Amino acid sequence: MRIALDAMGGDHAPEPNVHGAIAALDLLPEISVCLVGDRPRLETLLSEAAYSGDRITVHAAEGFIEMHEKPVEALRKKPKCSLAVCWQMMAGKEVDAVVSAGNTGAVVAAGLRTRLFLKGVKRPGIAVTLPTLKGKSVLIDVGANPQARSEHLYQYAVMGSIYAKSIFKIDSPRIGLINIGSEDGKGNELYRETHQLLTSSDLKDQYVGNVEGRGLYAGEADVLICEGFVGNVVLKTSEGIADFLMKSISEAIMPALDADRDKVMEAFKGLGKRFQYHGTGGAPLLGIDGICIICHGSSSADAITNALRAATNYEHQHVNERITAALVRD
Amino acid sequence: MRIALDAMGGDHAPEPNVHGAIAALDLLPEISVCLVGDRPRLETLLSEAAYSGDRITVHAAEGFIEMHEKPVEALRKKPKCSLAVCWQMMAGKEVDAVVSAGNTGAVVAAGLRTRLFLKGVKRPGIAVTLPTLKGKSVLIDVGANPQARSEHLYQYAVMGSIYAKSIFKIDSPRIGLINIGSEDGKGNELYRETHQLLTSSDLKDQYVGNVEGRGLYAGEADVLICEGFVGNVVLKTSEGIADFLMKSISEAIMPALDADRDKVMEAFKGLGKRFQYHGTGGAPLLGIDGICIICHGSSSADAITNALRAATNYEHQHVNERITAALVRD
Repeated sequence: MRIALDAMGGDHAPEPNVHGAIAALDLLPEISVCLVGDRPRLETLLSEAAYSGDRITVHAAEGFIEMHEKPVEALRKKPKCSLAVCWQMMAGKEVDAVVSAGNTGAVVAAGLRTRLFLKGVKRPGIAVTLPTLKGKSVLIDVGANPQARSEHLYQYAVMGSIYAKSIFKIDSPRIGLINIGSEDGKGNELYRETHQLLTSSDLKDQYVGNVEGRGLYAGEADVLICEGFVGNVVLKTSEGIADFLMKSISEAIMPALDADRDKVMEAFKGLGKRFQYHGTGGAPLLGIDGICIICHGSSSADAITNALRAATNYEHQHVNERITAALVRD
Repeated sequence: MRIALDAMGGDHAPEPNVHGAIAALDLLPEISVCLVGDRPRLETLLSEAAYSGDRITVHAAEGFIEMHEKPVEALRKKPKCSLAVCWQMMAGKEVDAVVSAGNTGAVVAAGLRTRLFLKGVKRPGIAVTLPTLKGKSVLIDVGANPQARSEHLYQYAVMGSIYAKSIFKIDSPRIGLINIGSEDGKGNELYRETHQLLTSSDLKDQYVGNVEGRGLYAGEADVLICEGFVGNVVLKTSEGIADFLMKSISEAIMPALDADRDKVMEAFKGLGKRFQYHGTGGAPLLGIDGICIICHGSSSADAITNALRAATNYEHQHVNERITAALVRD
C-alpha cells in the first residue's frame, strides 16, 4: 500500500512527520510512504535519522499551506504545494492514501477540487472519534460540508455506520441525529427532514432518533450525524471546555495537595492521554475514492505513525467498497 | 415589582420554588411574588413554612407541563397550565416578570404565543452566561429560534451587548460571531451574511469577528452570537463534556489520593459551584415586552431566589428600554 504523507503539514512539520513515517515501517510491513514537500530538507532529515531503505521516497512540492491561511485562496496561489501534490498523486493512482496534519480546511478543499468522490456519494464528510462515558462515538461531519442537505446527512449515517462497524467492530452501530431535543419534530427544517429520511430508511433499526448535545458524551449513540457547521462547533467547543476545565481543576486542586502531589500529577497525565483523541489515528474524510486521513495540527511522530496505521486499517477493512455497495444499492 | 413564579416548573417543584420565593422577600424588598400553580398544594407549603405575609400570593392554574412533554402539543392540551397562566398574567400587565424552571421549550413556546415582543424585535433569543478563562461570556441564542435569519442574529448582537453592558457592567462588550473558522468568508450563507451585517453596522467597533468553538471558553468575546440550533447544541455539549470530564477526573484522581483526600474533595466542591452557571440567576429571554427568566430544571431554592433577583436587576437596569432605543433608532 502506497501512502502520500504531506510532510510539510502540521505545527511542528516536517520533523515529526519524517520520524513518524520511519517508525511506521516496522509496524506496517505492507506500506511504502512518499514524503511530499521540500526535497532537500526532507532528504537531510532522512539522512540525519540514518534512514537508507527504499520504502520511503521523497516527492518534491513547491511550498506548503500555513495553518492560518485561507484554504481556497492559498490553494490558488500555491497550486504545487505539498497538499495539492498529495491529492494529485492519489487522483493519478500513484498512491492509495493521503495523510496530512496540515490546515484541515485546505486538506478538504484540495480534495474536493479533485472531485475524487466515491460512486454514489454526494458530499464527503469528516468523521472524528470522540471519547464518551460508554467508550467512543463517531461524529460526522465536523467541517467538510458547512451547509448540508438532508440527503447528505443521510449518507453520513450510511458511511459513519460502515466506518464504526469496520473499524471499531460494533455489530450494529446505533445512529443518532444531533438535535436540540429528543422528541420527533425537533430542530429546524434540515433536521426534521433528515429525521424523516432516517426513520423510513434501511437504517431505521439502527436509528435511535434525535440526540441532544448532552447525549453525545453520555454515549447515547455510536455514530452521530450533523452538518459540518454544527459538528465543527461541537468539536472545537469540546476542545475549548476540556482545556478550560483541566486548567480550572488543576488550579483548584493542586494548591490543596501536599503529600499526594506526585501521585495526582501521574493520574492527570494518564488521563490526558485518554483525551488525545486527535492523536489516536486521525479523522478520515469519508466518501472519497481513495483514503484521506486528517491529523491534528499539533501531531507528534506517534500521531503520524497512528494515522498511517489508520490508513492501512481503512484499506484492510474495505471501508470504501462497503460504502459503495450500500449507497449504490440504495 | 410583581413577579409571576411558575411554581410547578422544575424537577423538584413546587417545594424549592416556594422556599426560594420566601427567601427572596428579605433580600428584595421591592418585589411581590405570585405563585402560579396547584392552589391547595402551594397554600399548604406556605403554611408549613409558617409564611403569613401578603407579598406572596397564590394564583390557581390547571396542571403543568412535564419536562419531557412536547411544548406545543402540551400547551394545546393544557391551556390553563401554570406556565400559560404566568404569560397571560404578563400579557395582561398583572405582573412585570415571569420566572420559570419548567420545560424550556414550553416557556419559550408559551411566550411566543403571546406575541409579547418588544417594539422593533423580530425574534426573541435566550441568553445564557457561561464561565470562561477570562471571566464570563453571554451566548445568545441557545434555542428560542432554531432557524434564524441574519437580521435576527444581528438583533441578538444588539440585545446581547446591551445585556452584558447593563448586567455585567462591561463598558463596550466585545461581540463575536460563532463560526467554524476565524477568517472572513467562513461558515455557511447565514454566518457570512451576518458577518457582513455586523462589519458594516453601528456595532462594528465592538465586533471582533468570527470566533471558533475553542474561543468561546477562552473568553475571546464577551457576547457570542449564533442561531438557536447551534447555541443549544453548544450549551448541552458543554454540560455533557463537563459531566464526563468531572467523572473521569474524579475516577482517575480519587484512587491516587491518600492523605489529601478531604482537601481535594473540598476543592472539587468549590469548583462545582463555579460551574453552576444555570444556578446563578437563570437565562433571560431577550426581546420580550416584559421580563422572562428561564432557570435550569434542577433549580434549588437558592437558584429560584437568584432568578427572582435577576428579574429585579433586569428591571432596575432598564434593559428593555435600552434595547428598544437601540433597535428603533436603527
